[in-house]
Amino acid sequence: MEVASVLHMNGGTGEASYAKNSLLQQKVMSITKPIRDEAIRRIYNGKLPKCLAFADLGCSSGPNTLFMTCELIETVEMLCRELNHESPEYIIFLNDLPGNDFNNIFKFVECFKQNLNTRVVGGIGKCYITGLPASFYERILPTSSLHFVHSSCSVHWMSQVPKGIENNKGNICMASSSPLDVRNSYYHQFQRDFSLFLKCRARELVEGGSMVLTLTGRSTSGPLSNESHYIWELLAEALNDMVLEGIIKEDQIDSFNIPVYYPSSSELQLEIEKEGSFTLNRLEVFEVSWNAACGEEHNDNSEGYKVAQLIRAAAEPLLVNHFGEAIIDDVFHRYQHILADRMSKEKTVLLNLVVSLTKTT
Amino acid sequence: MEVASVLHMNGGTGEASYAKNSLLQQKVMSITKPIRDEAIRRIYNGKLPKCLAFADLGCSSGPNTLFMTCELIETVEMLCRELNHESPEYIIFLNDLPGNDFNNIFKFVECFKQNLNTRVVGGIGKCYITGLPASFYERILPTSSLHFVHSSCSVHWMSQVPKGIENNKGNICMASSSPLDVRNSYYHQFQRDFSLFLKCRARELVEGGSMVLTLTGRSTSGPLSNESHYIWELLAEALNDMVLEGIIKEDQIDSFNIPVYYPSSSELQLEIEKEGSFTLNRLEVFEVSWNAACGEEHNDNSEGYKVAQLIRAAAEPLLVNHFGEAIIDDVFHRYQHILADRMSKEKTVLLNLVVSLTKTT
Repeated sequence: MEVASVLHMNGGTGEASYAKNSLLQQKVMSITKPIRDEAIRRIYNGKLPKCLAFADLGCSSGPNTLFMTCELIETVEMLCRELNHESPEYIIFLNDLPGNDFNNIFKFVECFKQNLNTRVVGGIGKCYITGLPASFYERILPTSSLHFVHSSCSVHWMSQVPKGIENNKGNICMASSSPLDVRNSYYHQFQRDFSLFLKCRARELVEGGSMVLTLTGRSTSGPLSNESHYIWELLAEALNDMVLEGIIKEDQIDSFNIPVYYPSSSELQLEIEKEGSFTLNRLEVFEVSWNAACGEEHNDNSEGYKVAQLIRAAAEPLLVNHFGEAIIDDVFHRYQHILADRMSKEKTVLLNLVVSLTKTT
Repeated sequence: MEVASVLHMNGGTGEASYAKNSLLQQKVMSITKPIRDEAIRRIYNGKLPKCLAFADLGCSSGPNTLFMTCELIETVEMLCRELNHESPEYIIFLNDLPGNDFNNIFKFVECFKQNLNTRVVGGIGKCYITGLPASFYERILPTSSLHFVHSSCSVHWMSQVPKGIENNKGNICMASSSPLDVRNSYYHQFQRDFSLFLKCRARELVEGGSMVLTLTGRSTSGPLSNESHYIWELLAEALNDMVLEGIIKEDQIDSFNIPVYYPSSSELQLEIEKEGSFTLNRLEVFEVSWNAACGEEHNDNSEGYKVAQLIRAAAEPLLVNHFGEAIIDDVFHRYQHILADRMSKEKTVLLNLVVSLTKTT
């Protein structure tokens, strides 16, 4: 499977779309806001760029997509007022893989700019919004062309499923029951990908430029049960039930693995130090409950459904590519009930890591 | 009608899509290639930028879209070999209105880059391709951020239908039978739009930057019959037939006008001189037969259909917005027969203007 050509969040605005199922990611963004604000302030403590270039990596397509741009511009405009500085121009690069539904974002760009211009007292600098379809595991923009890079809930997606994990039987990710060599393969793929990610961004950012990354992680170096992977282990449970019932073949599930790695904070820190282009200003860890996917108004009955939809919005294209379309509704129906059961009995959270970096050399 | 939110070429890759009906535009591009090559050579006679920024305005979504980028990069790489200069990086802004089918372009970007890298001996510089959804009658990119601007078959589309043309009865554009005040209204709208277009591009281009525009025009200052507008007059004929048959109401057609203006070369030149930021290097006029829409392999029977599809790919969203979807097949069926008849009896050509400009002040 070519991950870059298959992986994307569900497009459009339907029931299973990312646009309709991204409340958890929104929660993550709101928790990490102070760290982004600090990072932007740091850029402005250095040079005051006449045109601020910003890239949001893995922007997806939904209410969260333009939310980041909005927040960035509001923060910069506030700083400009404080420093008695003219508003800059803004060029925004919304990046995601080519299968992302950019058309759906673009419909709202004009309206978004008008609203923002009205809401910010005194108006905002000219703002140019572009879509940038590319894998962030390669160079995506010219040398020294960016002041600020942001990515939320994306960098735990790897460029490919690790090689040599044929013995990850019954699992669909690096799970608590995965053999040691599978865990190592996943870790090495993460190391290769994340160091490449850092190298590329180091070339694209100007000196003094900032980068804030939020991704799902885990608390220890081993993959214990009830860690972030647990949400995928329950999806594997649904698939394995279908194997038992003869709906899916065993070798089909054995050959299916999700290209996701949830690093520990020390694994993340190690790669940043090894790459060497960035100063690590902050590394923080925080938990978000699975039921953040349900928003404010929900009842216990809908929790399983909402969390299943959260994962469906992200994983459906991968599942369809491997198992075909026919089983999808069945999988997520089973998954929903498994989720509801566990959420009523256990502490179910995703651990998140946020790092704030400054490009130095 | 908000032109910017309605106007776009038909998306996708279906029978009525722009992607499948853009051979005439391709012909126009191939005729104007030497002028673009000369313009790019002129940029390189000045400074050699490390990163060449290029915008294609009204890029649409089809085989022509990436064709321009391909041609540009091939020309620059050839020049680099000649001058013994390292390849630059490229950043490409593919611009069109927000309704354009960018998703369809983005699917091909990776494959396109790989092909180009293989085809050009020695490979090409790093190339970053973005989509830029915006009306080119406003600022679309930061100050002094572009080296080369290109637009083909787009700038004759205006930002809006002129005001005060209620008496353009039975016509859907500035036609040979339009009253003088309608013709004036169309001309004034063109003047406002085109001078704004030039002002915006003058801010966006670096000094010494180049712009090549190709658009449909007319040969004289009056709108004589059998000029470029004729292709729209025949669409009006189809619509008027439907009025006679009671399928469309008369006031529906009276209130429908296409926001297109085909200037004469002197009208174009006048606006360029009045705006004052550009040196006019070239202004050339050439004809393209309507049946360029049919490509190499066609027979007389399919000509009417192919030209009808050419116009349908461009005008369908406007017609649907005004008349509803139900009449569309009928309109283009009638139009096809009218076109076939006239093409067999008359000389049916579109006149095109191409200007090559250098940003001076």
